[in-house]
Amino acid sequence: MAGRMEIEGGAVDQLAGERSRAQFDVDAMKIVWAGSQHAFDVSDRISRLVASDPVFRKDDRTSLGRKDLFQNTLKKMTHALKRIVELRLTEEEGTKLRFFVDQPSYMDLHWGMFIPAIKGQGTEEQQEKWLPLAHKMQIIGCYAQTELGHGSNVQGLETTATFDPKMDEFIIHSPTLTSSKWWPGGLGKVSTHAVVYARLITGGQEHGIHGFIVQIRSLDDHSPLPGVTIGDIGTKFGSGAYNSMDNGVLRFSHVRIPRKQMLMRVCQVTREGNVLQSDVPKQLIYGTMVYVRQTIVSDASAALSKAVCIAVRYSAVRRQFGSQGGGPETQVIDYKTQQSRLFPLLASAYAFRFVGQWLKWLYTDVTQRLEAKDFSTLPEVHACTAGLKSLTTSVTADAIEECRKLCGGHGYLCSSGLPELFAVYVPACTYEGDNIVLLLQVARFLVKTVSQLGSGKQPVGTTAYMGRAEHLLQCTSSASSVEDWLKPSIILEAFEARAFRLAVACAQSISKFESPEAGFAEVSADLLEAAIAHCQLIVVSKFIEKLQEDIPGQGVKEQLRVLCYVYALHLLHKHLGDFLSTGCITPEQAALANEQLRSLYAQVRPNAVTLVDAFNYTDHFLGSALGRYDGNAYPALYAEAWKDPLNDSVVTDGYRDYIRPILKQTIFLSRL
Amino acid sequence: MAGRMEIEGGAVDQLAGERSRAQFDVDAMKIVWAGSQHAFDVSDRISRLVASDPVFRKDDRTSLGRKDLFQNTLKKMTHALKRIVELRLTEEEGTKLRFFVDQPSYMDLHWGMFIPAIKGQGTEEQQEKWLPLAHKMQIIGCYAQTELGHGSNVQGLETTATFDPKMDEFIIHSPTLTSSKWWPGGLGKVSTHAVVYARLITGGQEHGIHGFIVQIRSLDDHSPLPGVTIGDIGTKFGSGAYNSMDNGVLRFSHVRIPRKQMLMRVCQVTREGNVLQSDVPKQLIYGTMVYVRQTIVSDASAALSKAVCIAVRYSAVRRQFGSQGGGPETQVIDYKTQQSRLFPLLASAYAFRFVGQWLKWLYTDVTQRLEAKDFSTLPEVHACTAGLKSLTTSVTADAIEECRKLCGGHGYLCSSGLPELFAVYVPACTYEGDNIVLLLQVARFLVKTVSQLGSGKQPVGTTAYMGRAEHLLQCTSSASSVEDWLKPSIILEAFEARAFRLAVACAQSISKFESPEAGFAEVSADLLEAAIAHCQLIVVSKFIEKLQEDIPGQGVKEQLRVLCYVYALHLLHKHLGDFLSTGCITPEQAALANEQLRSLYAQVRPNAVTLVDAFNYTDHFLGSALGRYDGNAYPALYAEAWKDPLNDSVVTDGYRDYIRPILKQTIFLSRL
Ligand SMILES: Cc1cc2nc3c(=O)[nH]c(=O)nc-3n(C[C@H](O)[C@H](O)[C@H](O)COP(=O)(O)OP(=O)(O)OC[C@H]3O[C@@H](n4cnc5c(N)ncnc54)[C@H](O)[C@@H]3O)c2cc1C
Ligand SMILES: Cc1cc2nc3c(=O)[nH]c(=O)nc-3n(C[C@H](O)[C@H](O)[C@H](O)COP(=O)(O)OP(=O)(O)OC[C@H]3O[C@@H](n4cnc5c(N)ncnc54)[C@H](O)[C@@H]3O)c2cc1C
Repeated sequence: MAGRMEIEGGAVDQLAGERSRAQFDVDAMKIVWAGSQHAFDVSDRISRLVASDPVFRKDDRTSLGRKDLFQNTLKKMTHALKRIVELRLTEEEGTKLRFFVDQPSYMDLHWGMFIPAIKGQGTEEQQEKWLPLAHKMQIIGCYAQTELGHGSNVQGLETTATFDPKMDEFIIHSPTLTSSKWWPGGLGKVSTHAVVYARLITGGQEHGIHGFIVQIRSLDDHSPLPGVTIGDIGTKFGSGAYNSMDNGVLRFSHVRIPRKQMLMRVCQVTREGNVLQSDVPKQLIYGTMVYVRQTIVSDASAALSKAVCIAVRYSAVRRQFGSQGGGPETQVIDYKTQQSRLFPLLASAYAFRFVGQWLKWLYTDVTQRLEAKDFSTLPEVHACTAGLKSLTTSVTADAIEECRKLCGGHGYLCSSGLPELFAVYVPACTYEGDNIVLLLQVARFLVKTVSQLGSGKQPVGTTAYMGRAEHLLQCTSSASSVEDWLKPSIILEAFEARAFRLAVACAQSISKFESPEAGFAEVSADLLEAAIAHCQLIVVSKFIEKLQEDIPGQGVKEQLRVLCYVYALHLLHKHLGDFLSTGCITPEQAALANEQLRSLYAQVRPNAVTLVDAFNYTDHFLGSALGRYDGNAYPALYAEAWKDPLNDSVVTDGYRDYIRPILKQTIFLSRL
Repeated sequence: MAGRMEIEGGAVDQLAGERSRAQFDVDAMKIVWAGSQHAFDVSDRISRLVASDPVFRKDDRTSLGRKDLFQNTLKKMTHALKRIVELRLTEEEGTKLRFFVDQPSYMDLHWGMFIPAIKGQGTEEQQEKWLPLAHKMQIIGCYAQTELGHGSNVQGLETTATFDPKMDEFIIHSPTLTSSKWWPGGLGKVSTHAVVYARLITGGQEHGIHGFIVQIRSLDDHSPLPGVTIGDIGTKFGSGAYNSMDNGVLRFSHVRIPRKQMLMRVCQVTREGNVLQSDVPKQLIYGTMVYVRQTIVSDASAALSKAVCIAVRYSAVRRQFGSQGGGPETQVIDYKTQQSRLFPLLASAYAFRFVGQWLKWLYTDVTQRLEAKDFSTLPEVHACTAGLKSLTTSVTADAIEECRKLCGGHGYLCSSGLPELFAVYVPACTYEGDNIVLLLQVARFLVKTVSQLGSGKQPVGTTAYMGRAEHLLQCTSSASSVEDWLKPSIILEAFEARAFRLAVACAQSISKFESPEAGFAEVSADLLEAAIAHCQLIVVSKFIEKLQEDIPGQGVKEQLRVLCYVYALHLLHKHLGDFLSTGCITPEQAALANEQLRSLYAQVRPNAVTLVDAFNYTDHFLGSALGRYDGNAYPALYAEAWKDPLNDSVVTDGYRDYIRPILKQTIFLSRL
């Protein structure tokens, strides 16, 4: 219940020494992290509100069985809704409140997928009918696309929606086991309605996949409607974690819905059963997609920063080895190996935060363009957001586990907060597009862009650099000193040249095969690397652009500059093979970069704890005995341990039946 | 309950087509994997025995609460013991039985740490007294070294053992919170005894850390003895997983034990309280260490092969995209990206298996040398086993998660088996030596070896290659065609040159600092990379040595050769920066290697399913709906889902209290 700034009654701030070493204004950094003074104020107020409300406590979450966890989730959500209404919170505040409650639930899908699907794909008439019901939550909806047999390949979905002109109805049906809807969150136990994606059939002809609003449970007694079979799909990764969500299975046996419940903004079925394309351009749907991906990138920086906050604080608390003459041992954060594993993740948290903020801007930009019927930037925006979703979620998933390892044995306890954070986070690599499938889409766009370079078509947005093809193919890095690696132009050029040369090399490889498709398939492992290089360049360049802004606060910009270089140079080191094999830099230049990186780590060190304080997370939100603001990790770990149900009795329950017979050797009597 | 070979009643073998494509004799490969015909027979028989015994079912494990899971574990262990006695199993068979029961428990520590500690560190007299009790399990023991405040740094332990000459006793005491024993498995709820590591104090003087046999619970009623506080330390990562283990916390308040209970093989305390070093060389303890690490490497290949088996089979079952004219879609195992992620892991499973088998030999070799008082190879053996423990566990942990991702969304369900496998496996990166701390030990040995090269002291064992210093510094790879990368000599030379040059570069960097210690600390991130390069070389060279053996069975050796090259060349690609920056190979040669790698993947493809069949795992052991031998993943996933407790009732428990009030809008009434 402690706010992040308050130290609990009487406890000493074990990290005060660390905080006094910081070389920048942490309050100013908090505003930068939040995005604006207003965003900071809202986050700060709402996070304290949540932290101080006993209904929202979550320290018991990983020890609850599935049923109790689920009940607890329902309770929290109802309470959250009540508080939102009672306190007359704005939509922004309400969203923040759910963010800080920090427990996956049907609400996420209702607000995050069901409503947007109706907004994006429903006609005005449909929106007028359904949105008020959904906004008031008189109905609760989910997003039922994936099936047991099909996820990535949406065109392969098997559920059918057959038009019956006699009744003016669609018949929704699950013809096979693999056509069972499988995964939709909120479906298993809560939703009354679903947007169901199904294969449209009218007059015996197939017309592709479309969305349908289908009521699945009674609004009177919540039982599944006739012909509808629903259940939960079972335990998922981790304890606590995503198990608070009722991901569900759903089967239809010839379930009838009115024709008007097909989402008809883009494509309509008439009373007669004819299929008409509306004049609304299909591309409009991309607006929603950019929005959803932007939130995923922003969630990545949130999850990553949480993990990094825990690992940094505990690394400053934890001491191991190096005691000289009975003095205190070395803080593990002082080991260079610890720094070289941890500080790049700290830098990545900031990097992803800024690229996330930029994506917010991009969303506004795209929306305006769409309204003006300017679709020219869409392919580039699509590739860019797909790539950033993939890059940031993959890195974050791995980074959370690395942070756990950085905490040694204690990181393996649920009370460290890290196991649950990992388990709840990793599906982000899979949902909203499998990360590999997304990278292949990016790669396809890059190869296309390369192939059109000669044609006079100028690459736009994040691929604009490819317009300098000749230069990027020929340039050699001019870095000749350790300091040169602090020049944005030198860093950018190296990343641009690497990304471009990898893309060009792929395009050349592809051209050696009988068909482009065959070539693409054959070199697809290389294509992934080219796509990653491109995405990393985007993050690096957006971080550098951020530094060109006016950023107030003593020392703040200087810290960000250091983090930006750490981010770029650790990537350069990690992907050195790319940079060297494409001749973008020489081994000698790489050695200089590495030396610079070492020196940057030393500059991060005194600021590390304060750089994570700038996230302004409450102890409630972190949910970690190791990551506490006051650094009192050991008493917290110790106190948490005793709460385990196994400690309810001193002599364990199975003693008489299973342990005593061994010790007293009575189980062996049969042998004698 | 299905054995691996039998297809359950009536079900079709979905993978029969895959199996018919294999180009080698799977039965012969099974013997290679097992290590010998005898080892295969034992494993095969015992694994079926376990699989067919209903007490050992584990499909419900991830849905059990902590208490039920723990009870279930106690039950299984007692049952296992009973079966071992009833069937008069040999020690080898009994160990295998516990392996296939596949549930962490106090037994692991009793047999794996408590008994070996007494064997390794107890005098003959002590062994005679304690080992029979332990073998019969009239006492159950654990290994209590780690404390809340100290893990890696054993010399920093705070628990004290103060000799009281008046009573001829030691007083075991926990002077601080951080001195609480923390983590020992089997301690929390089961053990009656512990080997406790404590700071020996006699006559007011400190004499370092030693082991003491301490009784902690009553043999009559199992309650903690006076002065002893014990509990479980709480929930750990995952559901099921390592939560079947009672890792414990233990505090002593001036607990007295007889002097004779200090383990005195190497160091003795006399009746008068004098401390004597015995003439038994300290190095003897290394024997146990080599043994333990060898089992860890063997466990790594077991865990990795399990994950790979699941991912390979499911990748052959799963189809997504690429349907032409209504035909079946593409099996995802046919995508080159899937292959480039999956096949290196398959190759690694085999590579780790063989290096594990070699470590078994090394253990025998070391034991014989120790008996002959030949300690010359010990430092090298120590570095080699530390490095291999670190390398194989880190790779395996990451690989399990990669296998989970390779299964798309369904991998996130516990019924896939992968979440639990990951959660139960990852602490192997931390226990028995934090992997980073171990790599630094390897690095220290490498730097020392390099520095002694001029002195005439010949490097031995796995560092023998460093004897060819001059050649390795100057050589340039002669690979000039794609085929050249199938020459063991070319591969080995590249790996040797890379490892050696990285080590030499580190040594040179270190020499630039004021002191070797300061230099070592400063460049330690680079040292990790040098250590990893050395360890990878060991694995590659042991795999190549394996190929020089006579291996019977049609096509078997050819398959292993392909896997060996996949293992080596994927590493070369992954660490390309190392190879290029040290000038071991050129970018052109790297491109040739990459082309060869692509062609090798194509050769693995038709054999992939059969290569995992060769592990001979039962469906029980795999515990995965996705990895079933018969490939019937979808019906299995579907059936598992309905078992979730949330599906006990159709209308969910919280409906009246939490969902209905929202739908009926009654929670908002207060607002009106
Ligand atoms: C926690 C969670 C919540 C979810 N919530 C919802 C929800 O609310 N509503 C909903 O409809 N769905 C939901 N999903 C489903 C999710 O959208 C899918 O799991 C996701 O789209 C991935 O598809 P898949 O599972 O079919 O993976 P697959 O496509 O089967 O992937 C398996 C493997 O094949 C590879 N692969 C597939 N296609 C290709 C290709 N063309 N080239 C190369 N490799 C390929 C992948 O990279 C992967 O390695 C959820 C999933 C999870 C895990
Ligand atoms: C599941 C599990 C079971 C266990 N079972 C037992 C048991 O039965 N009995 C028992 O006694 N113990 C047991 N342990 C404890 C285990 O042995 C320790 O956790 C392990 O030794 C690591 O030590 P630590 O936790 O102190 O890590 P720390 O040393 O605190 O590591 C924290 C971080 O500091 C870094 N670090 C530490 N020292 C250095 C250095 N010198 N240079 C650079 N970096 C450094 C590490 O790399 C890591 O990133 C168990 C642990 C687990 C997780």
